[in-house]
Amino acid sequence: MIIPRQIYCSNCGEQVVYKIAEGRERSVCEHCNTIHYTNPKIVAGALCVWENKVLLCRRAIEPRKGYWNLPAGYLEDFEKVEDGAIRETWEEAGAEICIDKVITVYNIPQANQVYVHFLANLKDGIIRNGEESIESALFTEEEIPWNEMAFTSSSFALRHYFEDRKKGVYNTHLGTFPEK
Amino acid sequence: MIIPRQIYCSNCGEQVVYKIAEGRERSVCEHCNTIHYTNPKIVAGALCVWENKVLLCRRAIEPRKGYWNLPAGYLEDFEKVEDGAIRETWEEAGAEICIDKVITVYNIPQANQVYVHFLANLKDGIIRNGEESIESALFTEEEIPWNEMAFTSSSFALRHYFEDRKKGVYNTHLGTFPEK
Repeated sequence: MIIPRQIYCSNCGEQVVYKIAEGRERSVCEHCNTIHYTNPKIVAGALCVWENKVLLCRRAIEPRKGYWNLPAGYLEDFEKVEDGAIRETWEEAGAEICIDKVITVYNIPQANQVYVHFLANLKDGIIRNGEESIESALFTEEEIPWNEMAFTSSSFALRHYFEDRKKGVYNTHLGTFPEK
Repeated sequence: MIIPRQIYCSNCGEQVVYKIAEGRERSVCEHCNTIHYTNPKIVAGALCVWENKVLLCRRAIEPRKGYWNLPAGYLEDFEKVEDGAIRETWEEAGAEICIDKVITVYNIPQANQVYVHFLANLKDGIIRNGEESIESALFTEEEIPWNEMAFTSSSFALRHYFEDRKKGVYNTHLGTFPEK
């Protein structure tokens, strides 16, 4: 993913230029002297547990339509990151959750994204198909469709979750795509 | 902090309108049909340990000029969050660090920020005064200037670090300002 370049100043409407400002190339308006900072986006998600199963949603939208994923999406302005994970799980799976802890922080620099995934529990085991999902379902470890996962951010979280579950100790894991 | 509203479309230069798009009010260009998404920013920082001391920097810039803080700053485009913490520690304290693990994820919704602080070790104990710092110094737990800290994001990380150190188990802590 390439971040689309700004062409016009969102403050005054004049054309911006690209030049070094505050240490790196940024979009700068020489008319009103605004430096337009841009930053990576946070994707908030949840690894939701019910009994010995975890929740996956099959994506109804591109990219990776038809592939399975943990419920996750862009954090919205003024939203707490755990509230983003709760909202996305509701939108994608119609499921209510209780947040347990941060399970992964996962960089995808080339997409300008940082994923924050939470370990969570389903409140009542009820799941539905949200608007952005073809279906939602609960999987045991043996049933996980590893070859049909949409994004490595989800595989990374799931792999560490199952490893930690065997040890009985849940840690927070830091990762980056591509993994070394 | 209020996020400055866009007035002009950065894509075509026409005036934008504010209306519901994709579930919430956003800046939308009705001329070129661009929805201008905005999102919280990540602040990457480090709690850097050397022997039994931790690194603090006294801020040379507003806000909270003259107050002490963990080295931290906005994550830049295409940057891994731990690399942001390494860069900020170099810029603010001229110190080289080895990242250990995520120690806190801390929301400040009203500032539209999510802090990610890492537990880290100084490589050689050398610290300098970076451009954005009046001074850098190493503090034992007893020496921490709790009443002269710039931001609660740092106090939160430090408090949990010292609690965890007593237990000998370092966890990842999730928090929000204001704390309940």
